[in-house]
Amino acid sequence: MDLTKEYIAQLEEHLATGQLDSVKEDIATLHPADAAEIIEELDEEVVAEFFALFDDERSADILMELEEDTRESIVSQLTTHEIANEILYNLDSDDAADFIAELDEETKDKVIDEIEDIERAKTIVDLLNYPEDTAGGLMAKELIRVNENWSVLTCVREMRRQAENIEEVHTVYVVDDDERLVGTLSLKKLLTNSTKTKVSQIFNPTVISVKAAMDDEEVAVIMQKYDLVVLPVIDDLGRLLGRITIDDVLDVMKEEAERDYQMASGISESVESSDDLLRLTRARLPWLLVGMFGGVFAAQLLDLFSLEENGRMGLFIPLIAAMGGNVGVQSAAIIVQSLANETLKNSSITTKLGKEFGVGLLNGAIISVLVFGLSQLLGWEILLATTVSIALFAVIIFAALFGTFVPLVLDKYGVDPALATGPFITTTNDVIGLCIYFGIGKVILGF
Amino acid sequence: MDLTKEYIAQLEEHLATGQLDSVKEDIATLHPADAAEIIEELDEEVVAEFFALFDDERSADILMELEEDTRESIVSQLTTHEIANEILYNLDSDDAADFIAELDEETKDKVIDEIEDIERAKTIVDLLNYPEDTAGGLMAKELIRVNENWSVLTCVREMRRQAENIEEVHTVYVVDDDERLVGTLSLKKLLTNSTKTKVSQIFNPTVISVKAAMDDEEVAVIMQKYDLVVLPVIDDLGRLLGRITIDDVLDVMKEEAERDYQMASGISESVESSDDLLRLTRARLPWLLVGMFGGVFAAQLLDLFSLEENGRMGLFIPLIAAMGGNVGVQSAAIIVQSLANETLKNSSITTKLGKEFGVGLLNGAIISVLVFGLSQLLGWEILLATTVSIALFAVIIFAALFGTFVPLVLDKYGVDPALATGPFITTTNDVIGLCIYFGIGKVILGF
Repeated sequence: MDLTKEYIAQLEEHLATGQLDSVKEDIATLHPADAAEIIEELDEEVVAEFFALFDDERSADILMELEEDTRESIVSQLTTHEIANEILYNLDSDDAADFIAELDEETKDKVIDEIEDIERAKTIVDLLNYPEDTAGGLMAKELIRVNENWSVLTCVREMRRQAENIEEVHTVYVVDDDERLVGTLSLKKLLTNSTKTKVSQIFNPTVISVKAAMDDEEVAVIMQKYDLVVLPVIDDLGRLLGRITIDDVLDVMKEEAERDYQMASGISESVESSDDLLRLTRARLPWLLVGMFGGVFAAQLLDLFSLEENGRMGLFIPLIAAMGGNVGVQSAAIIVQSLANETLKNSSITTKLGKEFGVGLLNGAIISVLVFGLSQLLGWEILLATTVSIALFAVIIFAALFGTFVPLVLDKYGVDPALATGPFITTTNDVIGLCIYFGIGKVILGF
Repeated sequence: MDLTKEYIAQLEEHLATGQLDSVKEDIATLHPADAAEIIEELDEEVVAEFFALFDDERSADILMELEEDTRESIVSQLTTHEIANEILYNLDSDDAADFIAELDEETKDKVIDEIEDIERAKTIVDLLNYPEDTAGGLMAKELIRVNENWSVLTCVREMRRQAENIEEVHTVYVVDDDERLVGTLSLKKLLTNSTKTKVSQIFNPTVISVKAAMDDEEVAVIMQKYDLVVLPVIDDLGRLLGRITIDDVLDVMKEEAERDYQMASGISESVESSDDLLRLTRARLPWLLVGMFGGVFAAQLLDLFSLEENGRMGLFIPLIAAMGGNVGVQSAAIIVQSLANETLKNSSITTKLGKEFGVGLLNGAIISVLVFGLSQLLGWEILLATTVSIALFAVIIFAALFGTFVPLVLDKYGVDPALATGPFITTTNDVIGLCIYFGIGKVILGF
C-alpha cells in the first residue's frame, strides 16, 4: 500500500465532509501499520471517529503500532470492557501483556477482571510477572507443541486443534512427557513422512533456547547470531514457556542502536517525531549544559595560564580541542560497538588499551608531523610550532587512551558505555587537552 | 552452546596434540556460527585442519559466517570443483550467489562451469544479475508455490515434492496460471480445511511484495514496518521471483546503523575486529585530517582577528567552539534519524528548519542567560560577558540551522546524509562560530 499524499488528502476530505461510507471503502485493505501512520497525521478531533471505523482485530493491531501518546489518548476513550474483550482479545499474549503494563494500576486491575476468557486472563497475568527487558518479557505464549511420543497423524490432528487459536504457525515444538523442550519438528518432515511415523523418530533435537530471565539485548545477539526467526523460552527445568519472534527483538535492537546513536550525538531522548518545542529542547539541553560548564571551566583554566600574556598560544586552542575531542570520540565509539557485538569476551582491557595506544601513536605522529610541516609553510614561529606539534601528539595519545578507558570502566560498573561517546568525552578532552598544551608551552616557551 | 574459555582451550589442545577424534567429538553439535567464531580465534596454521573436520553442509554455513579475510584464505585452498559441488550445493541460492560474487572473475567462471546441477547453475547466474543492494540482490529462489486452482490435496502433494529441495518452509505462495503472485496460503488454513477445498477459496489475497529493483534499505523499512519475516519479490509483471528473509535484511539494517554511528563518531570503515594497526589507523585518519585542517584554518583566522591583542576573548574560544559543535551534531543527528525512519515524507525542509530554529532559539536563550549569570558570579568584565552571551546565542542558532540544512541537502543530492554528523560539521561550526564571536566582539569591545 502506497500512502500517497493524494490518498491521505482524499481520506481527510471524506472524513471532514462526513462521507463515512467512502472512508470505509478507502480503508478496506489498509494495513494496521499504515492506518497508524495516518492516525498520527490526522487532526485530533477526527481521530476517534476514524479509529471507530476499523473492526476489532485491526483496531487492536493499530493501537500497538501507534506512538505512546496517541495510543493513550485513544485508549482513554474506551471502556475497560472494550479494552479487555475487543482489544486484548485480538492481540497475541505478548502484545496484550505489554498493552496492559502501560495502563495505570486501577485501570489495569479493572481490565484484568473484565477478561471473559479465564485461561487467557491467566496467560496474561503470568506474562506480566516477567520484567520487561528479559526474554520472559518479550515472549508470547501462543505456540504449537507436540509430544515426542505421538505419531505424525496424532500430531497433525493436534496441530489442527491448536492452530485454531493461533494466527501464525512459526515452528512446531516437541516436548517430552514433562513438558520439557526436546526439539523441533519441521513442516518438511511432517509432509514427507508417513502418518504412522513417531515424532521421536523424525524431530530435530538440536534447538537453541533461552531461559526466561535472560536480558533482552542478549536475546537479540543470539537471534541474530544464529539467524533465528523465532526462539523458544524455557524455565529453569527446561520446560517450554513461550516463544520470542524476531519482530519483537528487532524493536529491541533498533532501540539499542538509536540510544547509542543519540548518546554519541548528545540527545537524551527519542523525540524526533514530536512537535512539542519544549520536549525537543529538553531532550538536548542536558548535554549542552555539560558542554557549557566545560567551556566555562576551560575559560577559568586559560585565565590561570594567563592566556592574555601568551596570546599567540590561543590561536591553536581550536586545533588542540578539536583533535582531542575527535580522537576521544573515535576510540570510545569503537569500544561501544565492540561491546555491543561481542559474544566472545576474551580480549582484556590491557589488550584494548594497547591497541588504541598503538593507533594513537601512529595517528599522533602523522598529525604532528603534518602540522609542523604546515606551520613552516605558513611561517609560524618555530618554538610555537614545536609546542603545538608536541602538544598535539600528547593530546591525541591521551585522548585515545581516555576514550578507550572510560566506556570500558562504565561497562564494568553496569553503566551504559555509550554515555562515554557524547559531549562528556569531548568536554573532558577539551579541558585536559588544554592543560597538556599549556603545560608543554610553559616548558618550551618558558612563560 | 556456550563457548566457554575452557571449551576453546580444550579444543585447541586437542588440535595441537593431533587428537582429531576428540576434536570431532567436541564439535559434534557445534553450530556453524559458533564454529566460525572459534575459527576466527584459532592460530592460522590449524585453521585448515580444523575446517576439514566438518561435513559439507556445516562447512558451507561456516564459510558464510566468517569474516571476509578468513573466508578468502580458506576458499583459496579449495578446488573449484569443491566450491561448486560441496560448498555452493549446500547453500541457499542467495548465499550461493553472494559467495560467487566475492570470487575473482576467473575463479567465478570456473566455479559456475563446474556446477553439476544445471538448474541450480541457472538460478545462481540469474541471481548474479541483480545489483547487490536491491531486493533482487537479497532474495533467494527457494520457496513453495502453489496454483490458485489446485485443491488442498494437490497442494499438499506438490508442497511435499517442492519441500524436498528446501531447508525451511516460510510461507506458501499462491500464484495464478501466469505465475503472478496473488496471495499466500497459511499452514493453518491448510490444516483446517478439507482436502477437496480449492486454494482459491481459502488463500489470503492481501500480500505485501516488492519489486526486484527496490533499494535494500527500503526493503528493510518495509519488512520492519509490517513486521514481516519473509517478503516475496516480484517482477514488473507481478510474477513471483523469490523471497527475502528477515535475517538478510537484519544484516542490511545493522550495517546501515553501524555506518551512521561510525560517521557520527568519525570512523570511516568497520574495522573494530581487525588487529592490523595500519588498517585501524587508516580508518580514522581521514576525519582527523578534516579536523586538523579546520584547526589550522581557525588559527590563521584568529591571527587575522589579532587574538594576541584581545587575549581575554581567547578564554572563551573552547566554550564557543564546543557549543557550536554540540548543537550542530544534535541537529544533524536528528535529521539523519528521521530520514532513515521516514516513510511518509510529508514534512518539508522549511518545516524542519522552522522546528530546529525554534529549538535553537530556546536552547540559545537558556544557555546565554546561564552563561551571563555565571560570568557575573565569577567576576568577568561586563562587556566581555555580554559579548560571549550574545555570541553563544547567535552561534547556537546558526549551528542548529546549519546542522539541519546540510544533511537535508546531502540527502537531496543522493549523498549519505550521515556524512554531516561527523567531524565535518563540528569543524565548520568551529570556524564559523569563531567568526561570529570575533565579529560580535569587534562591535561590542570595539577593537
